[in-house]
Amino acid sequence: MDLRPPRPTVDWVDDRLRIIDQTRLPAEVVELDLDTAADVVDAISRLAVRGAPALGGAGALGVVVGFDEVAPDSTGAAAHRLEELRTLIGDARPTAVNLRWAVDRVVDLAIETAPSGVAAMRDALLIEALSVVEEDQRACAAIGDVGAEVLADASRILTHCNAGRYATCGWGTALAPVYAKHEAGQQVMVLACETRPLLQGARITAFELAELGVPVTVLPDGAAATALHRGMVDAVIVGADRIAANGDVANKIGTFSHALAARAAGVPFYVAAPVSTVDLATASGADIVIEERDDAEVRRCGDRQLVPDDAHVWNPAFDVTPAELVTGIITDAGLVSPPFDSGLAQLR
Amino acid sequence: MDLRPPRPTVDWVDDRLRIIDQTRLPAEVVELDLDTAADVVDAISRLAVRGAPALGGAGALGVVVGFDEVAPDSTGAAAHRLEELRTLIGDARPTAVNLRWAVDRVVDLAIETAPSGVAAMRDALLIEALSVVEEDQRACAAIGDVGAEVLADASRILTHCNAGRYATCGWGTALAPVYAKHEAGQQVMVLACETRPLLQGARITAFELAELGVPVTVLPDGAAATALHRGMVDAVIVGADRIAANGDVANKIGTFSHALAARAAGVPFYVAAPVSTVDLATASGADIVIEERDDAEVRRCGDRQLVPDDAHVWNPAFDVTPAELVTGIITDAGLVSPPFDSGLAQLR
Repeated sequence: MDLRPPRPTVDWVDDRLRIIDQTRLPAEVVELDLDTAADVVDAISRLAVRGAPALGGAGALGVVVGFDEVAPDSTGAAAHRLEELRTLIGDARPTAVNLRWAVDRVVDLAIETAPSGVAAMRDALLIEALSVVEEDQRACAAIGDVGAEVLADASRILTHCNAGRYATCGWGTALAPVYAKHEAGQQVMVLACETRPLLQGARITAFELAELGVPVTVLPDGAAATALHRGMVDAVIVGADRIAANGDVANKIGTFSHALAARAAGVPFYVAAPVSTVDLATASGADIVIEERDDAEVRRCGDRQLVPDDAHVWNPAFDVTPAELVTGIITDAGLVSPPFDSGLAQLR
Repeated sequence: MDLRPPRPTVDWVDDRLRIIDQTRLPAEVVELDLDTAADVVDAISRLAVRGAPALGGAGALGVVVGFDEVAPDSTGAAAHRLEELRTLIGDARPTAVNLRWAVDRVVDLAIETAPSGVAAMRDALLIEALSVVEEDQRACAAIGDVGAEVLADASRILTHCNAGRYATCGWGTALAPVYAKHEAGQQVMVLACETRPLLQGARITAFELAELGVPVTVLPDGAAATALHRGMVDAVIVGADRIAANGDVANKIGTFSHALAARAAGVPFYVAAPVSTVDLATASGADIVIEERDDAEVRRCGDRQLVPDDAHVWNPAFDVTPAELVTGIITDAGLVSPPFDSGLAQLR
């Protein structure tokens, strides 16, 4: 499997950051070349680029864009600009840990390089940003290899939200094993839950799989339990936003329901994520604060009002699937099986 | 509780059938006066009126509308017209059992009345159609009374789809106990799952509860498991499209997931339905054929395309909740508790 997927959602082309505008999918594929820090911040804020690993890559390369934009003529001016960019781009989405981490990483390295001059700072910046992207691509490929082995006998895969090419710089997390099996010529098809309210499953997962010829069927989130009960699914695989030390998994709202239904149907439930998603400082899911997002995401669809003004809306962005419902965690460092507390602690 | 709710979704006003156009909710409340059989068929086909019990009332009164439209001048012409209407209106939605049943009932009675003349046929028709409506209203009120007692200690109620005033001629099935508690001055609030793909929970349940001052919060279907897990719900109550002899329940897709999540959280899961919904001829849920509806319901939302053309869609309209997940069945003839096979058989 090439590390670099076709049409990466985050790419460095002609000394500029090129992204696919995910807000336009699936209606059209629009490439955006980002020339300024303001462009980068705008793209991140309005979710033109999304998914924790993809945000890391976009943020790191975005710092290079913002640096080139002002072309600082002294190391002092360069350091000043880098601190500006650390805040501007690093805070473009407050809860995106990978974004903050990747921006800090490239800014810190460039500032350490200041004694060697402005040109060296810029070189260090770009090399480090491309490393962020490549490390993500390597993690995705490793997850693909590990997952393809775990799912060797599974050809009908149910997933939720989008943890694929458009959420990472590489082949994805939950979808990497699907691509690995497809590339190896093994039969594989995906049931993609549409993932209300933002419909990343319907819009993005379905698009990226169909684009590469992987058969995909979209279903309402509430239909997954029936698909599982009827024996239409060999395995469930989802991504993760955070994995606690005990194996509890925070992921897109709706994941917990699928885990319950998979258990009731006797279907294995896997989580795929890079080791960096495991947070040993979080003891269990009870310690994970769940972001509640704007009512408007549920209240409206496009121009259409769905929920009347005098009704309330509850819109939690994530849920926590208890470790006891998880069959295994597929990481770039291998498969972790229960008991997760010891297995996860040994990963690093 | 008055049998007749405020603003009935199916009503007989000035010798015409008046309905609320549910396709316009919640944006606006549009009353339609239906003058012709074609109007009635159109309203039923495009889901301006929906919900099995409401379709029974609309179909029965629709036959009166279609009869008056041609004003037959002989009993022969009247009988001919009634047979036309039996097919035209009775088949307006092929899977709606209540519609077919109610249309047959009024047409059969009017034809039996032919020896007494055309005027007597028309009188019989209207009286029988109003009986269909009133019987539905009585069943709803009885379900409300039984359910309010069952849910005496439950104030936070989770429901799915719409089984309320807009699905029946009366106070609803699943929502009747909520209205009964509200009218009795007991604290009650509803968590309404939005119910993809057609969003009857977001659009209709939220609207009808808020309209009468019952606090209601809409959540994505995938968030229900988290609400249940966090102790935000005292009881789940849903309607039913068909209840098998063993207590398996066919209801709107997504219901099964909520039943699994309620069981995992230790929250009671109730089904509310008139006795007529119990089909002793259906041994279990395995014998219920589930309608699969048009892709377009999932593929688009308003004018917006969500799922790309080259992805498939699976859109089952209903699912089956196994009897073992059901705490009790609230009917107009009382509460049925497990074991359901004997309890349901004794209902009539």
